[in-house]
Amino acid sequence: MNQFGHAFRLAIFGESHGPAVGITLDGVPAGIPLSTEDFEADLARRRGGAAGTTPRSEADRPTILSGLYEGHTTGAPLTILFENNNTHSQDYAGLRDHCRPSHADRVATDKYRGFNDPRGGGHFSARLTVALVAAGVVAKKILPEGISFATRLCAVGAEQCPERFDEVIAAARAEGDSVGGIIETRVEGIGSGWGEPLFDSVEGWMAHLLFAIPAVKGIEFGDGFAVATRRGSENNDLIIDAQGTTATNHAGGVDGGITNGNPIVVRVAMKPTPSIAREQMTFNRASGLVEPLQIRGRHDACVALRGQVVVEAVAAIALAELYLRA
Amino acid sequence: MNQFGHAFRLAIFGESHGPAVGITLDGVPAGIPLSTEDFEADLARRRGGAAGTTPRSEADRPTILSGLYEGHTTGAPLTILFENNNTHSQDYAGLRDHCRPSHADRVATDKYRGFNDPRGGGHFSARLTVALVAAGVVAKKILPEGISFATRLCAVGAEQCPERFDEVIAAARAEGDSVGGIIETRVEGIGSGWGEPLFDSVEGWMAHLLFAIPAVKGIEFGDGFAVATRRGSENNDLIIDAQGTTATNHAGGVDGGITNGNPIVVRVAMKPTPSIAREQMTFNRASGLVEPLQIRGRHDACVALRGQVVVEAVAAIALAELYLRA
Amino acid sequence: MNQFGHAFRLAIFGESHGPAVGITLDGVPAGIPLSTEDFEADLARRRGGAAGTTPRSEADRPTILSGLYEGHTTGAPLTILFENNNTHSQDYAGLRDHCRPSHADRVATDKYRGFNDPRGGGHFSARLTVALVAAGVVAKKILPEGISFATRLCAVGAEQCPERFDEVIAAARAEGDSVGGIIETRVEGIGSGWGEPLFDSVEGWMAHLLFAIPAVKGIEFGDGFAVATRRGSENNDLIIDAQGTTATNHAGGVDGGITNGNPIVVRVAMKPTPSIAREQMTFNRASGLVEPLQIRGRHDACVALRGQVVVEAVAAIALAELYLRA
Amino acid sequence: MNQFGHAFRLAIFGESHGPAVGITLDGVPAGIPLSTEDFEADLARRRGGAAGTTPRSEADRPTILSGLYEGHTTGAPLTILFENNNTHSQDYAGLRDHCRPSHADRVATDKYRGFNDPRGGGHFSARLTVALVAAGVVAKKILPEGISFATRLCAVGAEQCPERFDEVIAAARAEGDSVGGIIETRVEGIGSGWGEPLFDSVEGWMAHLLFAIPAVKGIEFGDGFAVATRRGSENNDLIIDAQGTTATNHAGGVDGGITNGNPIVVRVAMKPTPSIAREQMTFNRASGLVEPLQIRGRHDACVALRGQVVVEAVAAIALAELYLRA
Repeated sequence: MNQFGHAFRLAIFGESHGPAVGITLDGVPAGIPLSTEDFEADLARRRGGAAGTTPRSEADRPTILSGLYEGHTTGAPLTILFENNNTHSQDYAGLRDHCRPSHADRVATDKYRGFNDPRGGGHFSARLTVALVAAGVVAKKILPEGISFATRLCAVGAEQCPERFDEVIAAARAEGDSVGGIIETRVEGIGSGWGEPLFDSVEGWMAHLLFAIPAVKGIEFGDGFAVATRRGSENNDLIIDAQGTTATNHAGGVDGGITNGNPIVVRVAMKPTPSIAREQMTFNRASGLVEPLQIRGRHDACVALRGQVVVEAVAAIALAELYLRA
Repeated sequence: MNQFGHAFRLAIFGESHGPAVGITLDGVPAGIPLSTEDFEADLARRRGGAAGTTPRSEADRPTILSGLYEGHTTGAPLTILFENNNTHSQDYAGLRDHCRPSHADRVATDKYRGFNDPRGGGHFSARLTVALVAAGVVAKKILPEGISFATRLCAVGAEQCPERFDEVIAAARAEGDSVGGIIETRVEGIGSGWGEPLFDSVEGWMAHLLFAIPAVKGIEFGDGFAVATRRGSENNDLIIDAQGTTATNHAGGVDGGITNGNPIVVRVAMKPTPSIAREQMTFNRASGLVEPLQIRGRHDACVALRGQVVVEAVAAIALAELYLRA
Repeated sequence: MNQFGHAFRLAIFGESHGPAVGITLDGVPAGIPLSTEDFEADLARRRGGAAGTTPRSEADRPTILSGLYEGHTTGAPLTILFENNNTHSQDYAGLRDHCRPSHADRVATDKYRGFNDPRGGGHFSARLTVALVAAGVVAKKILPEGISFATRLCAVGAEQCPERFDEVIAAARAEGDSVGGIIETRVEGIGSGWGEPLFDSVEGWMAHLLFAIPAVKGIEFGDGFAVATRRGSENNDLIIDAQGTTATNHAGGVDGGITNGNPIVVRVAMKPTPSIAREQMTFNRASGLVEPLQIRGRHDACVALRGQVVVEAVAAIALAELYLRA
Repeated sequence: MNQFGHAFRLAIFGESHGPAVGITLDGVPAGIPLSTEDFEADLARRRGGAAGTTPRSEADRPTILSGLYEGHTTGAPLTILFENNNTHSQDYAGLRDHCRPSHADRVATDKYRGFNDPRGGGHFSARLTVALVAAGVVAKKILPEGISFATRLCAVGAEQCPERFDEVIAAARAEGDSVGGIIETRVEGIGSGWGEPLFDSVEGWMAHLLFAIPAVKGIEFGDGFAVATRRGSENNDLIIDAQGTTATNHAGGVDGGITNGNPIVVRVAMKPTPSIAREQMTFNRASGLVEPLQIRGRHDACVALRGQVVVEAVAAIALAELYLRA
């Protein structure tokens, strides 16, 4: 299903090469000032065109179809539409049988018995993340004052020094290849008490949404996988004041599924784009043979670049849900 | 909220030191043979008493209150109850103000304005995982024939050699300490086409549920965080036959949120139990001072030991949900 | 499914002749004073034994399994259990094939392929309304101060004069028959603004829940079906002050799905109990013939009597859901 | 909230005088042939212009934004948009304070603190039923072959003879007034076993959705309120064959919340349009006085005329939900 949330609900729709992609947001409180300009900064962070990103350039101008009146949200569903203008559908001919490895093409064709829109990955395309970014912009406006998001690339491939990221990406691109990366979002200013034990934990909601982003294969909070290597005496975050400030933040701001008032830290591993220019030997259902596949189209050499704002948006969406409930 | 799922719904309840913990399962198809003996094997895997686990020993006999008639499920809600018999509530006196670090005690006291049951972590206790394990037993029976689960400890602390795990745990215990670990569940025999893009991805559902397990701080599928370090040409799983078998399984059996027919592999990082015997310097709200805290009670030196069957149960629950929908 | 609600969630379970029926309530705010005595008054209103009701007499003592600590709700799920003590299961032998008319027996046997618990209607039994009444007690405590419920029988059979209801019921019983009735619940003190347009209307939520009560076949708000006979100029509720008080209340307190501050009035039609002592000619699947059926067991001559507190409980549950969201 | 359903989900959006109204349908199976022409017949039944309906005439051409590829549904969300072209927003100036009686204007203004779109009732407008009709068209295509819907007006005002309905409506209109009505939808060909006891009953789902239609104040199944007047021996539907055919159909095709294979019969009371040309004395918040209100704009003299196809659509939507789950 393509709907998510209880207090802040998303209904996402669209395909990469269809007329439009969009999202309907329900539960947005009335009276929030909003204009299409408010989306510009985050959309620009996601937009293609920079080094390492796809040359496909969409204007990405949001059209607000409902839920806005005289510059404020109305409390009714807010529908935000992005038209698809810059599509090269012919690039995708023939991928029904000779499926791109590590893409959704094959599973989608099987699951939907060949009725899915295959152009550019159809509904599975990372194009839909433009709608998540738009939802993130609204989510940030729902959250109370004083909350800030800081998102960065921690790694590109095996490289962890930011100054060398461009180099690593350029090298991959030059070889007709792509490269993965790790994104971190840090949220400061969240009070104590958001989220719930068990199924409505902060981590659970964020993780559920983060895995909606294509290419995400791992998620960790605070020190994440590193905590497994530790002793309890090393890993415990000792409380130092009445507000619950902790001397360390190994937990990434969440205890028992609930925010503890310290910064939330979430880290996400994105795989290298599976669409690469290099020839790949993979099964062709038309011929019944493993054959060389040459993928055309325009692709990111490192989706983690543009993925940063998407991860941040999704974190904001999950927090807006929990905030509206708390 | 403590309810989860659409086609296979869980409603969990109970506290560590209350009369009972339990779970109501809805959506269980009618006609599945079921008896309390069916729970024994998985409950035994979770039960305390082994080296490295808490000496608290509950009989853990499930009582089935509803949804069972003449040895078969009826299609009505199945409620499974576990009485709490072996509680030492006096061990927890005084933890309201002098909160255990890296536990939910403080956030829970604040969120519920002091009305939460503090004994043994109350509703936040790992005691509730007994209900998840029971749900997992039913989930496995819902899944079609031919699906197998294999779960193992990949690491205990920094140690990755299984033969030395006991040693590492014993050393931690001897020092009044605890140690973290990494658990892997591998599911074979799942066909292609379970799950959906975006919000109902296999990864999203599993991750959401996995974070309901206390102590989980990281989750990865397939090669997980390692994929971030790779090139696309290294990471792509080339398809080798008409069934979609792949030469490698870096993706852990999921493409575009949907199972691709290859084994599902999920790995989970569990932190070291925060309840340790060693004295900890942490804030006491009663005195307003950072003071030494001595935690009593009976605790696991490595929760990842007993966590294995819980992770497996939760994977089965998520798969049952997606199977019943597919 | 047997779960309902978003902000105030119910998960109901149990069968008429199983070990117990019960309900888990999630979303109950922490800190509400609650004891098993609080349930007594409403349970007494529902209990069998009075003229016109079944002689089956259950003690109906609630056991609270979770969510309560030192006399207050904890914010964790509240599970309330009612043991079944007084069951005569042998009364129901043979009803698998020779199904009781206008009961769920036949559809349940087909839908669950014979695995449903047939004793006393199993999970379809009105016995489960004891759990709804208990949920209603909690719901009333969730609602803000100053809200009052008044529930009455408007009609028993064709009789609308309350003084003659007992007579009508006694006459039906004397003839081995049963009789229907109409129940009205009136809620005063609800402020303006609860509920939402379209799918979360006050009427929609209440109606959804009211149809969970066995025997309900019609629901109307305010003047209900009578409004269809009127002109707009007769039916409009003219506003007379700044608070939105209306000169008339044809709407029953709801405009556009949202409470308008005037009393909520809901009316429910309950059919006569289908279980009657009189012989009925109905199909027997064992013989393949239409044959006389003699129903044994203990049954209400007018379920609308005991239905009153159930309708009121369900109205309270729906309002608690909308209040917690508003 | 404006989202509804589990297996067949609706997300509705839009305002009467905004750019568009629309709906996103999720859970639509892949492979259903669909074109914009398929919507024409039902949209024509809803369209204004006939005697008794508003002179506002919208072309009501659906635009399908997503979920359709080469003439078939894809399994991805199906978004259907209707642009609003024929709006006279100036007709609604001044209604913020001098609220139309029995409309949502006042409650909406309060609930959304004046941020709601007031033009033409905004999001509360019956304009949104165009989206429900479109969803109904898709729902009918989801349902299996052999199911037929028959919908009729049972009453207009107090008149029950169809030949005199036009007369009654014309008389109301001539006097600047409106008139209510009763709509019946009958569904034949539904098999046994759809729906569930308690919260997912056929009646509960249908009723929940039916109350999303503006002006609906009462709902009944089968003989509805009339069953309350009867004896059990009169009201029971005796089974006459192995398929569960009943000699009578007082129950309207539903026992215990589940379809029994006999025709489903649902009846809905719609109030007279509150927007009438006649002057009404109602409170004006600007002046603090009860003052005469003259409503301008174009309105239906009997909304039950156009409501017929909406009721039928909503019945189809509820059945599609239950069918996809069964």
